[in-house]
Amino acid sequence: MTRDERLRQIAAEFAFDPDEEIKIGGKYTPVLIDENIAYIAGQIPRVGSVVRFAGIVGADVSIDEARRAAGTSTLRALSLVLKQCGTLDTISAVPRITVFVRSAPDFTMQSEVADGASDVLYSVLGDVGMHTRTSVGVLQLPKGASVEVDFVFRLGAK
Amino acid sequence: MTRDERLRQIAAEFAFDPDEEIKIGGKYTPVLIDENIAYIAGQIPRVGSVVRFAGIVGADVSIDEARRAAGTSTLRALSLVLKQCGTLDTISAVPRITVFVRSAPDFTMQSEVADGASDVLYSVLGDVGMHTRTSVGVLQLPKGASVEVDFVFRLGAK
Amino acid sequence: MTRDERLRQIAAEFAFDPDEEIKIGGKYTPVLIDENIAYIAGQIPRVGSVVRFAGIVGADVSIDEARRAAGTSTLRALSLVLKQCGTLDTISAVPRITVFVRSAPDFTMQSEVADGASDVLYSVLGDVGMHTRTSVGVLQLPKGASVEVDFVFRLGAK
Repeated sequence: MTRDERLRQIAAEFAFDPDEEIKIGGKYTPVLIDENIAYIAGQIPRVGSVVRFAGIVGADVSIDEARRAAGTSTLRALSLVLKQCGTLDTISAVPRITVFVRSAPDFTMQSEVADGASDVLYSVLGDVGMHTRTSVGVLQLPKGASVEVDFVFRLGAK
Repeated sequence: MTRDERLRQIAAEFAFDPDEEIKIGGKYTPVLIDENIAYIAGQIPRVGSVVRFAGIVGADVSIDEARRAAGTSTLRALSLVLKQCGTLDTISAVPRITVFVRSAPDFTMQSEVADGASDVLYSVLGDVGMHTRTSVGVLQLPKGASVEVDFVFRLGAK
Repeated sequence: MTRDERLRQIAAEFAFDPDEEIKIGGKYTPVLIDENIAYIAGQIPRVGSVVRFAGIVGADVSIDEARRAAGTSTLRALSLVLKQCGTLDTISAVPRITVFVRSAPDFTMQSEVADGASDVLYSVLGDVGMHTRTSVGVLQLPKGASVEVDFVFRLGAK
């Protein structure tokens, strides 16, 4: 199966449509390609007009839901690359992701939530999806999302 | 009008002097240029010895004030590039900004605050100022600032 | 003294073994080298199986302890480069570090905590260790750590 097919397969499991249009409100852009690096704006797990699994992880939102939220953010990021480049085959490395988890004061499993993003990257990209990662627990996120993830992808031959 | 002139015009509207010296306390630097990428340290909206609009956004600080705080941080960043490079004409892209908003627990309009940074980038740089952006809500910031923003600029011909 | 020797000397002061194996739980990697940039995953001050100075800075954890936590995270990052590259002599710049400080609601000295990271970089690398830095106060961190720091190193001749 190609990466693009794997993206579509996993997106179907998440009930996410990778062809969904991603709208932006302000004077910024969801993807910027600068000399073979694709920077992806912070993604919350929005599907259509709904932010899935909104709330505080460790209080309103379970770890499993938060992990799924992180996976959904990752599918959005991969879909942005797919739209911009026509295929995910162009990704040659994933240098960095940063995972912000809206956390209850005593919730310390931010890494376990971030695994939801790492697992989707690995499932779609295989070893090329191995990345460095920073996971932190924040007080709030846009739209009350439980998770926000941003990404740096390397494109093209290394 | 040139970019440098637009910076000065907008800075005047913000009552910020782009020639103001930016002091650093520790063993780090406000700007580091590495192979045509200018990294800018996290900027709080300090003007002279005053941190403007300090406080919690959604409690002590209004959205409009926080947006202005984000704009001030952005003027500081652009001033740093101006001082280092002599002109803003060298900026060819803005791959990434990260906007940290000191938030009340129920405040979820971090993106609207970040628009204050995006609008200044667009006003000064035009389409070249389009960037990817991550906005999150944090518990605290240095000096009790309401907003902190860091930046990655691409310099030189692409 | 070489950089590698200075690392070992300062690590000894911190009672940290730079040869300690750094284990990873998920589908990510602690270091990723992409075209002469080494990205280091967010480091908490773990030594062996213990996270040192866990707790809330400004409440359970003092500034001095938090600064030492930030220094320990930095020693971990430098040790990762040492293991991957065989020597720290390959580092030619430190474009960016981000310092997340688990903060009490009224604690605003995140920059002073971050100095613990900056000081270790400077002690080991000298002027090459000068970097840009973003310091923020977050609600929680993985394993209840007081500090987490991530790093971007430039390798090789500039």
